[in-house]
Amino acid sequence: MLGLGMIGGSLLRAIRHTGLEVVGFDPDLATAAGASAAGFPVTASDARAVRGADLVILAMPLTEVEAALRSLAPHLSAGAVLTDVGTLKTPVLDAVRRVVPMARFVGGHPLAGTEESGWSAADPLLFRDAPWALTLEPETDIDAWVAVAELACDLGAKPVPATAADQDAAVARVIGLPHLLAEALAASGLAGGPLGLSLAAGSYTTGSRVARTRPDLVATWCDGNPALVGALDEAIERLAVARARLVAGESMLELAEAGHDARIGWENRRFRPVELPADPGMLRLHGRDGGWITAVLRDDEGVRLLGMRPAE
Amino acid sequence: MLGLGMIGGSLLRAIRHTGLEVVGFDPDLATAAGASAAGFPVTASDARAVRGADLVILAMPLTEVEAALRSLAPHLSAGAVLTDVGTLKTPVLDAVRRVVPMARFVGGHPLAGTEESGWSAADPLLFRDAPWALTLEPETDIDAWVAVAELACDLGAKPVPATAADQDAAVARVIGLPHLLAEALAASGLAGGPLGLSLAAGSYTTGSRVARTRPDLVATWCDGNPALVGALDEAIERLAVARARLVAGESMLELAEAGHDARIGWENRRFRPVELPADPGMLRLHGRDGGWITAVLRDDEGVRLLGMRPAE
Repeated sequence: MLGLGMIGGSLLRAIRHTGLEVVGFDPDLATAAGASAAGFPVTASDARAVRGADLVILAMPLTEVEAALRSLAPHLSAGAVLTDVGTLKTPVLDAVRRVVPMARFVGGHPLAGTEESGWSAADPLLFRDAPWALTLEPETDIDAWVAVAELACDLGAKPVPATAADQDAAVARVIGLPHLLAEALAASGLAGGPLGLSLAAGSYTTGSRVARTRPDLVATWCDGNPALVGALDEAIERLAVARARLVAGESMLELAEAGHDARIGWENRRFRPVELPADPGMLRLHGRDGGWITAVLRDDEGVRLLGMRPAE
Repeated sequence: MLGLGMIGGSLLRAIRHTGLEVVGFDPDLATAAGASAAGFPVTASDARAVRGADLVILAMPLTEVEAALRSLAPHLSAGAVLTDVGTLKTPVLDAVRRVVPMARFVGGHPLAGTEESGWSAADPLLFRDAPWALTLEPETDIDAWVAVAELACDLGAKPVPATAADQDAAVARVIGLPHLLAEALAASGLAGGPLGLSLAAGSYTTGSRVARTRPDLVATWCDGNPALVGALDEAIERLAVARARLVAGESMLELAEAGHDARIGWENRRFRPVELPADPGMLRLHGRDGGWITAVLRDDEGVRLLGMRPAE
């Protein structure tokens, strides 16, 4: 485990719960000392953590990924699987293709976490019921993909097969956009003076919650994602229409109904179980249709995957 | 108590906890039956609830306030205090001036509640630590104002003195804007297809929480509030700048820092206790400066109010 912040630290804890042997590394000495004091084996270099490992997990901010890849490349075992936990998958995939093109890489993005950060926020139960995007490109080794999906299932998460491009487009709408709207609300909501600071309550508090996140992390989840432009355009258009209606003395009811229906419809989705072969094309389609994996079965006939998909 | 939805029902429960005698009325028979079955005295008409009452509380949606005032007007005792719990105060004040101009009216807005609604969501602890705007206009009877403030303190809330216009301007930013952004997020966040529905998690979930609110209620909290236009303009401008930066290959860091600083600064505000006379001008200034009332003291020398205000 390279990087022991909230996500990496939570993974370190969660993976040890499964009985696997796991070793951590973090270049920040205080973070490393924290993990060590909590009883986890922590190495003094990334090389020592990587050498001989069957699975290497990158858990550092996107801006540090390429340097980390260059540093670990000479130490990666031939058959080792490499994965990561970053929000955007295209830039990581590009870096892997440049730096360690022969690695058995599966890009990963557990949609877990809070607005907190750091080893002290690590929680082994963080991944329970969390969607976990796993990239499945034409060059992806399907056995490596299944191995990472199996680990995610063991941690209680819901692996979602997707290409890096599809996952980044989805993330623009469900992570980038919510964060930018929360930042805009946090700043504009309080710009009206002290009386507003007193009256800010429920809707302001939850609406701006993720503005508590470290700003540099929010930037790495948004910057350079082309799909975020379209998502922002759509949200701005909705707000501009609302603004024009307000000026014309018309109601906000239409916008409120659109939002309400989308949110309630999302909550009320229904799913049904499916069984899938370890076939990249079928898995990609399963993810694109809104499905995820619940378990990996291995027997004499090979590997099968159980999953859930939208009922309609 | 006229209206026994989430706010009115919560008030009915909370006020009885203080030992005061309270009677409820709701035109919806199922709601009235629910309150009656829970052991509360419920009248068959608003007239019966209002007649002889020292305090009458309106707790219906804004669209029903004027009709309610016309219906109760003939039954209001001469010295009775009239208050309400609606989000916008200017339209209620206007209706009171038209329909019951002689009433001892204090507009009220407890910033309590969730995205739920109805008697079944009523909770006597809903008002604990909740800001509660109380309008203080030139014509407001200061004794009536203090009486309502005292009741709000007894329920654990924090009465905030404000003119109706000032409170509506503040509410545009801390209620109207968060709701419109949540509606826009709820709708636009999920418009990218089934994969996005699977990956929507923490930031989407809290960011769109208040889109679960009944759309007609959201509309009554926004429609006709002129200050909401400026608040929307400011948020749209922030998002448009972010969009332009994204297209130019620049970072979202500046927006994220502005939002983070506003939110964290708000959380870290510090306050100091103050003592105030029951003077309308001083109370209005106290509210405008970010202060609220914590207790009403009555002794031989008259009435004094204790409060908190920003330390700086």
